[in-house]
Amino acid sequence: MEFTKIAQQAKQASLEIAGLNTRIKNIALEAIASAFEQNKKIIFDANKQDLISAKTLVEEGKLAKSTYNRLKLDENKMRDMIQGVRDIAKLEDPIGEILLKRELDKDLILTKVSCPIGVLGIIFEARPDVISQISSLAIKSSNAVILKGGKESINTNKTIMDIMNSALKTIEEFPQNVIQQVFTHEDIAQMLKCDEYINLIIPRGGNKLVQYIKNNTNIPVLGHASGICHIFVDSNADYDMASRIVTDAKTQYPSACNAVETMLIHKDFPLKNELYASLELNEIKLVKNPDRWDIEYGDKILSVKEVNSLDEAIAHINKYGSGHTDSIITNNTQNAEIFMNNVDSAGVYWNASTRFADGFRYGFGAEVGISTNKTHARGPVGLEGLTIYKYKLTGNGQIVDDYVKGEKHFTHKDV
Amino acid sequence: MEFTKIAQQAKQASLEIAGLNTRIKNIALEAIASAFEQNKKIIFDANKQDLISAKTLVEEGKLAKSTYNRLKLDENKMRDMIQGVRDIAKLEDPIGEILLKRELDKDLILTKVSCPIGVLGIIFEARPDVISQISSLAIKSSNAVILKGGKESINTNKTIMDIMNSALKTIEEFPQNVIQQVFTHEDIAQMLKCDEYINLIIPRGGNKLVQYIKNNTNIPVLGHASGICHIFVDSNADYDMASRIVTDAKTQYPSACNAVETMLIHKDFPLKNELYASLELNEIKLVKNPDRWDIEYGDKILSVKEVNSLDEAIAHINKYGSGHTDSIITNNTQNAEIFMNNVDSAGVYWNASTRFADGFRYGFGAEVGISTNKTHARGPVGLEGLTIYKYKLTGNGQIVDDYVKGEKHFTHKDV
Repeated sequence: MEFTKIAQQAKQASLEIAGLNTRIKNIALEAIASAFEQNKKIIFDANKQDLISAKTLVEEGKLAKSTYNRLKLDENKMRDMIQGVRDIAKLEDPIGEILLKRELDKDLILTKVSCPIGVLGIIFEARPDVISQISSLAIKSSNAVILKGGKESINTNKTIMDIMNSALKTIEEFPQNVIQQVFTHEDIAQMLKCDEYINLIIPRGGNKLVQYIKNNTNIPVLGHASGICHIFVDSNADYDMASRIVTDAKTQYPSACNAVETMLIHKDFPLKNELYASLELNEIKLVKNPDRWDIEYGDKILSVKEVNSLDEAIAHINKYGSGHTDSIITNNTQNAEIFMNNVDSAGVYWNASTRFADGFRYGFGAEVGISTNKTHARGPVGLEGLTIYKYKLTGNGQIVDDYVKGEKHFTHKDV
Repeated sequence: MEFTKIAQQAKQASLEIAGLNTRIKNIALEAIASAFEQNKKIIFDANKQDLISAKTLVEEGKLAKSTYNRLKLDENKMRDMIQGVRDIAKLEDPIGEILLKRELDKDLILTKVSCPIGVLGIIFEARPDVISQISSLAIKSSNAVILKGGKESINTNKTIMDIMNSALKTIEEFPQNVIQQVFTHEDIAQMLKCDEYINLIIPRGGNKLVQYIKNNTNIPVLGHASGICHIFVDSNADYDMASRIVTDAKTQYPSACNAVETMLIHKDFPLKNELYASLELNEIKLVKNPDRWDIEYGDKILSVKEVNSLDEAIAHINKYGSGHTDSIITNNTQNAEIFMNNVDSAGVYWNASTRFADGFRYGFGAEVGISTNKTHARGPVGLEGLTIYKYKLTGNGQIVDDYVKGEKHFTHKDV
C-alpha cells in the first residue's frame, strides 16, 4: 500500500481513538497480551526464520553479533514482552486529565485537558519487542502509530503485528488502523516528509539512525542521538563513593546511553591516583588523552580529565556533553547546587550514578524513550510524553466585543 | 558579525542567564521600561526615518498600507509597549518551579524543576514593538534571544535594541548578549540551519513567512501558519446567540487569526434564512460556494456550508481546519461534548466566540504566540511555553547495581 494512504488511515484512526474510554483501551491491551500467550509458538517460529537469515549475515560479517542477540526472542523476552503490555494496561490513563480549570467570567469556563498527540511514526532497529511495547503505549495514550522495523526482523515483526491486529479486531468498539506497519526504506523517506499526517517521530536505535532522522525531517523527533554523560569528582568528594559510583556508571551496563563516558576530576582531589588504580582494578580502561571529548565508548573505557575548578568542569560538560545526564560527587552543598543549576542537561545528579536516568527507575511505569530535546519532553519520557492538551471553553453566548468595549470584565479565577 | 559567532554568544548568554534570580531579572525589565520613557524622542525620530522610506514604497505600490500602519509608532503604542514590559516584570517567574518531587528510595530524591529552553530565534515582520515584547518575555523566562526584524523598520529596531542593551549594561549582574539582533536575509537562512545553538524558532508574521520557516528548518517552531476557524450552528442552536457570536467572530477584528472563516450550519436549523439575512445586515459577505474551504479571508467574508449532521461538521473541520479554534453553538449538551472531544483543535468552544483564543483573555498575563503544534505548547502560549524542565537527583552514593541485584528496592513515593 502507498505510504500516503497508510498515513491517511492512521490520521483517521487517531481521530477515532482520541475519545475512546479507558475501559476499552485496557480490554484491548489484555486481548493483545492473551493473544501473545496463545500464539507464542507462531512468534518463535517466525523469529527462527529471521535468525537463520541473520546467522548467515553474521557469518559473512554483514551483521553485528550484538544485533543478532537483540533480534533473538527467547522465553524470558517473551514473558517480559507480555508482562510489559499488562503493566501498561495498569497505568493511569494519561488522557482526559484536567490540567487547569479557570473561570474567565461568570458562566465562561476554560478547561485545559490532556489529549493525544495524533499519529506517531516509530523507526526502530532489530529488537522486535519494540513493536509490542510502543503499540501498547500508543493505545493507552489514544494515539495511532505507524511502525517501521529493521529488515532483519521482518518475519517476527509481521507476525507480532498480525497477532495484535487480530486481537484488536475482536473488540467491536476499537477503531481500525490504530497500529500499522511499513517495511521499506522508501517508507522511511516518505514518513519523514509526511508532516501533514504524522505529528511525532520516535526513533529507537543507534546514534547514526537518530542523527539521520533528526537531520531529515521537520516533524518533531523525540529521542537522543548520543549519551555523553559525565561524572565530576570534586576536590572534597568521598573517595569510596566516587569509586563505587564511577564503577557502576561505567560497568553496570556499558552500552547504555546513561553510562558515563568522561570522568572530570578536580586537580586537588587528594586520592586521584588511588581512584585511578581502583577503577582500573574494576577493569575500566582509562584514557587520559582522548582524541575527542565527545566519544560514546559503549564499552568499559573512560575518558579522564583533570580540571582546575568547578566552573571548568561545568564548561566542559556544557561544551562536550549531549545534555543527557551528568553527576557531581562532592560533600560541598553549594558546589552541588551550582553544578545542578548550571549544567544544561536533562538529568543533573549529586552523589548518584548516571545509570538512574530511566523511566522505570524514575517511577513512570513505562518509558517511551530518553529525550535530550529542549522542548516538549526532556529526560526519561513516560506516557505523558505522548500527550498534548486542548482548551475547552464553555459559555452561554459570550462575545469578545463586550470585553473590548469594557461592558464586561474578565474575572480570571481558577476553580 | 558572522551569524555563528552571534549564535555562540547567545548560547553562552543562555547558560549565564539560566540561573539569574528573579529580582535581577525584574530590575532589568524596569531599567528597560525607564529607558524607553527617557528616550521616547529618539525612538520616534528613528521611526520617522523608517516611515519616510516606507511611504515612498507605499506610493510605488511596493508596500501594503496595512504594513505601513503596523510599522508606525505613536504615543499610544509607545505607552502600551512600556506598560507591556512592566506587566511582564509583574508576572510570576516561570523558572525554578518544582513540578514533581519524588523519593525514589531513602535519601534518593528526584526533583523535576522548570528551566529555560536556551536560545530563541525570533523572525518578525513590520511591528517594531515585537522586539521589546519578546525580549522582555525572554528575560523573564531566562532565555537568550536573537531577533530578526523586517527591513522596513530597521532604524526603529536598531534604536530600540540599543536602548535596551544600554539599560541592561547598567546592571552589573546581568549577563552580556542575552538579547541580540541580526539584519540580513542570509541571517535568516543561517538561523534556520543553526540547530546546534538555537533551540526554538518563533515566527511573528503572516502565513507565508511562517510556512516558509516551518518548511525550512528542523529546529522546533512555535506558531501557526494559518487560522481557519469554524463555527458550527447546530439544529437547535439559539438564534440570537448564533447571530451575535458569528458576527463577533467575523467582524470584531477580521484580520485576527482567531476570526471565523467558515460557518457550518445544520440543515435542520429552522432560522437559516433569517440568520443569513442578519449576518448580511452586519456587513458580512456570505460565500456559499467557495472555490476552497481552507481560505483565511482576513476580511468580513464568510464561507457558509450546510451540513447534514454533527459528524459531517466535525469531519469538515478536521479536514479543512487549521487546528486553531472552532466553536459549536447548540443547546444540546451531548452534541457539545462530542464536538469538543472529537474536533482536533487547540481550542474547542461551546456557545462562545472564537475570538476568545488569546493569552490575555485566558488570563496568562502575556502571550508568546498562538500555536497549532501538537507537541510542547498548543493554543495561546504564555511564559510557560518558553520553559522546559530538568531532573535533579540527589543521593548519598546510590548505585544502580544494588537495585538490579535486588539488594535495594525503589520506594517511589511522591513527597
